[in-house]
Amino acid sequence: MLRIPYQELFDNLLRVLLKLGFEPERARRCAQLFAETTRDGVYSHGLNRFPRFIAQVQSGIINIDAQPELVAASGALERWDGRLGPGPLNAYQSMERAMALSREHGMGCVARANTTHWMRGGSYGWQAAEAGFIAICWTNTMPNLPPWGASDSRIGNNPLVIAVPRSGGHIVLDMAMSQFSYGALASYRMRGEPLPVEGGFNREGLLTRDPAAIEASNRPLPIGYWKGSGLALMLDMIATLLSGGRATYQIPPDPERESHLSQVFIALDSSSLASADQVAEQIITHFQTSQRSPEQVRYPGQQVLRIRSENLAKGIPVEPSIWNKVKAI
Amino acid sequence: MLRIPYQELFDNLLRVLLKLGFEPERARRCAQLFAETTRDGVYSHGLNRFPRFIAQVQSGIINIDAQPELVAASGALERWDGRLGPGPLNAYQSMERAMALSREHGMGCVARANTTHWMRGGSYGWQAAEAGFIAICWTNTMPNLPPWGASDSRIGNNPLVIAVPRSGGHIVLDMAMSQFSYGALASYRMRGEPLPVEGGFNREGLLTRDPAAIEASNRPLPIGYWKGSGLALMLDMIATLLSGGRATYQIPPDPERESHLSQVFIALDSSSLASADQVAEQIITHFQTSQRSPEQVRYPGQQVLRIRSENLAKGIPVEPSIWNKVKAI
Repeated sequence: MLRIPYQELFDNLLRVLLKLGFEPERARRCAQLFAETTRDGVYSHGLNRFPRFIAQVQSGIINIDAQPELVAASGALERWDGRLGPGPLNAYQSMERAMALSREHGMGCVARANTTHWMRGGSYGWQAAEAGFIAICWTNTMPNLPPWGASDSRIGNNPLVIAVPRSGGHIVLDMAMSQFSYGALASYRMRGEPLPVEGGFNREGLLTRDPAAIEASNRPLPIGYWKGSGLALMLDMIATLLSGGRATYQIPPDPERESHLSQVFIALDSSSLASADQVAEQIITHFQTSQRSPEQVRYPGQQVLRIRSENLAKGIPVEPSIWNKVKAI
Repeated sequence: MLRIPYQELFDNLLRVLLKLGFEPERARRCAQLFAETTRDGVYSHGLNRFPRFIAQVQSGIINIDAQPELVAASGALERWDGRLGPGPLNAYQSMERAMALSREHGMGCVARANTTHWMRGGSYGWQAAEAGFIAICWTNTMPNLPPWGASDSRIGNNPLVIAVPRSGGHIVLDMAMSQFSYGALASYRMRGEPLPVEGGFNREGLLTRDPAAIEASNRPLPIGYWKGSGLALMLDMIATLLSGGRATYQIPPDPERESHLSQVFIALDSSSLASADQVAEQIITHFQTSQRSPEQVRYPGQQVLRIRSENLAKGIPVEPSIWNKVKAI
């Protein structure tokens, strides 16, 4: 593993995006979102996903110049068409707009149809929290998870992001509805480790901690078994209904062609709430002083801050093969 | 198990509430919410919880005459004080108000502080769906769940409800953040059955399917391990911040004295959405035609409709001991 400074990472991503024809301001925003995701340790959705993003631009899945379009407005709630623009830019603009609606109406919601992969969902939680907003946002995905009781993938792992600002470190939950992503399963398999908890079914239909057995059956487990299965379904339904876009079952089950996603962004201005920062601080303090089991008790987002500062200090770890590929463009 | 007609159940609950001094219209609404919950098969939060509700009225935890009070309003977002009124009445009024705000602002949110136990959270999802609204609501609870990595209960199991209306049967998710409630653990133990999946830790800190071992350690498991732990924390934070009320850590860890709860109710009018009913129908059809494993693939709310119609036809099952207690009041 190689470590490179943040600025070098950003500059190279920016250079590639400009070369692909991105308008300069959009290239900067997009490079920033990929670079920050990598800086924060979410390598799977940062630099390591950048080659696929580029491939989707080149294959026309992503339209780099598409500007989102307001389709319908009803007070605090707006429906936008993402017109297959770059997912990170669409998502960033959606959260900006939800925050603007919130300033005007107390809360704001943007439902976006026809967008492309937003990469790290947590980015839009951090974006809102930095601006002092409480945020809830989620996306549907292609079918990649069997409902509880089923063997074929009919629901998405539909990442859900919830963010609360706090001066001592924002609290940002960024979780998919599968207990382990396929990327996580592959990592455990390659390290030769069993999963820490049951992660899916084997081909015989039995729950297992063997990552390879789950990859073979294509039956990862929803969080909380029947509960995450239901939650994934509801998130897909609401995103589809509010955006007027496509549901999980209408999205091609192929990561290279995953497109026409539906997303929801809700923002609430917490600066208007009395002593919000103190309240958040007290809840986190109480949470963190739990009696500890072997593991540490971490709040969502805590680990990100630790990795972020380590990576800024020591350089950001990159896969040499991917890094060389980006530098060669 | 005895079965009694819905009307007889309702009439008896109403009679008791009137005798306790409830104003007639409030008594009717409250009796209806308890009776419908029992009718729908959620016995733990229907008739079986009624004696504790009565005890809380008699001990002064619940103030039967308290009317909720609007504390602050900002467009689509309102903050209300529940003034320790009956939880079901407070929650019902909150959802009514969120729906009214939604008609005016596209979406509506009521955050309510200082309320008492809302009983079945799903009731307010069904209420919204019946009126044609998409709804998301949740409550915090007393500390009853250890965070992931901890051994003492510092988070609540914070039930989350999401509802989408559909003419073919509403889709209503009603889930707590613990994989199994203490009530569910007791049921498995009394039947002498292991849990179908790991439900918590034993005293040695190992994951187990033995319900008695989890009752002994007081360490039930959050859904999705670290994920449900984080989600429970976020729900508590947002409910506390928006309502200006108390967080889980400020609520006495005693079911008899659980009070001053904070809740959030969000409503979106789906009647304004083009072809919403068809879209919901298609998603559910696709979900239900999954390749089946041993279990059936059920959408959230499906089982409720089956039990509801069976109980209306055959009579509602009641525990004779509890039923006799109610009749004797």
